[in-house]
Amino acid sequence: MDYVEAGQVRQVRCLLSGVGHVGRRLLDLVQKKSDYLRTARRLDLLLVGVADSSGAAACPEGLDLAEILARKRKGLGVAGLPGFGQPGRTTLDLVESVRADLLLEASPPNLRDGQPALRWVEAALERGLHAVLANKAPLVHGYSHLVQLAADHGVQLRFDATVAGGLPVINLGQRDLAGAEITALEGVLNLTTSLVLGGMEERGLSPAQALAEAQAAGHAEADPALDLEGWDAAFKLVILAQSVLGIPARLSDVAVEGISLVTTDMLKQAAARGRRIRLVARAERAGGGYRLSVRPTPLPLSHPLAQLTSQQMGVLFQTDVCGEVSAAITEETPMPTAFAMLRDVLDICACPGAGS
Amino acid sequence: MDYVEAGQVRQVRCLLSGVGHVGRRLLDLVQKKSDYLRTARRLDLLLVGVADSSGAAACPEGLDLAEILARKRKGLGVAGLPGFGQPGRTTLDLVESVRADLLLEASPPNLRDGQPALRWVEAALERGLHAVLANKAPLVHGYSHLVQLAADHGVQLRFDATVAGGLPVINLGQRDLAGAEITALEGVLNLTTSLVLGGMEERGLSPAQALAEAQAAGHAEADPALDLEGWDAAFKLVILAQSVLGIPARLSDVAVEGISLVTTDMLKQAAARGRRIRLVARAERAGGGYRLSVRPTPLPLSHPLAQLTSQQMGVLFQTDVCGEVSAAITEETPMPTAFAMLRDVLDICACPGAGS
Repeated sequence: MDYVEAGQVRQVRCLLSGVGHVGRRLLDLVQKKSDYLRTARRLDLLLVGVADSSGAAACPEGLDLAEILARKRKGLGVAGLPGFGQPGRTTLDLVESVRADLLLEASPPNLRDGQPALRWVEAALERGLHAVLANKAPLVHGYSHLVQLAADHGVQLRFDATVAGGLPVINLGQRDLAGAEITALEGVLNLTTSLVLGGMEERGLSPAQALAEAQAAGHAEADPALDLEGWDAAFKLVILAQSVLGIPARLSDVAVEGISLVTTDMLKQAAARGRRIRLVARAERAGGGYRLSVRPTPLPLSHPLAQLTSQQMGVLFQTDVCGEVSAAITEETPMPTAFAMLRDVLDICACPGAGS
Repeated sequence: MDYVEAGQVRQVRCLLSGVGHVGRRLLDLVQKKSDYLRTARRLDLLLVGVADSSGAAACPEGLDLAEILARKRKGLGVAGLPGFGQPGRTTLDLVESVRADLLLEASPPNLRDGQPALRWVEAALERGLHAVLANKAPLVHGYSHLVQLAADHGVQLRFDATVAGGLPVINLGQRDLAGAEITALEGVLNLTTSLVLGGMEERGLSPAQALAEAQAAGHAEADPALDLEGWDAAFKLVILAQSVLGIPARLSDVAVEGISLVTTDMLKQAAARGRRIRLVARAERAGGGYRLSVRPTPLPLSHPLAQLTSQQMGVLFQTDVCGEVSAAITEETPMPTAFAMLRDVLDICACPGAGS
């Protein structure tokens, strides 16, 4: 990252991969907070490249964020950006050809093998770029490898936006609870399933109606089956297990059951017994390790996760020496998820080792 | 801090000021976690000096933590530690005469002027020691001055243990929400008042009975009026206002009302209206700044702070771009508060600039 003349504002050249619900809000946020970034943090985040499904655009002096956002609002891709866009180019092309400090990876997750984003993140780390991910899939399929690559190349890999949106769950687990033994970890980590269960429970909607609402608000993944069948929560649990609990967990280690068999009657019966059904991701001590599961769970109403509204995500850590710590977030849009990416960027830039 | 031969374990020479509920548990914790500290963090926390109301003890090779704890359990002070103790010496004497890297300040808070601990912390920072505080009073009376001293001497001042025990409220506000505008901050920050209100509400205890229970568990301050009259919560709000909201708040800026006028009837009437009374510390936007208050507040049951049990403390941040973030902790003993001090120590030691 370069220090430029005026008041030592540090220019950070960023590549953005993916301009969907989260990527768009990140651009919006960087615009909204440019005064704060420049004045309080002495940072100038320059977008030198951007890629979406249409192709890519690059400009070493920085692209116009407002112009990109205006195009996306019209349903147009970045490949058509006058003067800078090129159809068919990918994030990999940007990483290989554009001088940059940091890759912001916010493309849609590919559950099957994490590709092509896994390759993009690898390439970025290998070339000495820091990487900030909102896309979970590369971590689920390549966590240890990516952590090693980052260490080998002296750069940072951050991904607080991958779990529970803007809630700093990774930060809580990795930093604030470092040194405490986490005896159990539970989370309501998927907003779509809570919105669907909440809509069925509170407003008598059908599962399909409730899902359509969640999708309209930009909360659901492109493929809703990932949410409803519990895979999105399982992804997040695997990331937590690896990064916070320190175990080499894989997706196949998680017993996964989604909410598709949960009926309105079951929700009513649970309520009559003073319980609320939520899709709970859980890691509990078993032998020397942890048993991992994602399943619809009837929680007593006194449980911190039962008290979440259907617009909240939350997490509960049970520990040996730091009591029980819970945290929750209300997100009405994916803006907090975009903010979590910005938070990671700020952490990287605040690190004394990150300047060049 | 020195790097010693064996596997580059870094020795951190600590002074502990105050060996009460928190200080004792901190010593216990350092013993319990010595393997973790040495193996995972490459740290050897050496207690080279300790002071309590009886006097002080010092040893450059490190004092025996188990021996100190055994004495305290018998009601004996550190001044009588064979070979090392000296009656009448204070933390200031230790800071001025013992070579150390870090001061752990956990002596009882003096509401009136923060002394003598304020002077001890100043002396420590001036001599190039980092300071980690569980004692709120020096911050309430000298925040800006202490922050400036730390900056001038290239050392760190940390105090996450001063607000809501083990809950990382300062970390959440300063680090995880950096860049977001906090439009309102609310907290149930005093455990004693929640225990008293909860005991009255749930078990029909008198205020005096409920208070005696809280004191027996080690939660109440030495002078219970500080808790019951709202001053302890006001102290914490002032620290949050200064460190998280960035305003030069003083105690006199907080409208403070304690719980002494709250009756069992009032709690019942509130419950009948679907509300729960808790002592809420609140900062809300007013003009260019924040209006600060601590008062018994009837919260709707859906409010995150109304859902806290009487053994929990919690906080709610309303923000512009990170939604509503809440966090809570269940503390059955002050161990999590001691852990928050250890967390601060680890953060300081993990900082690349902290080695010498």
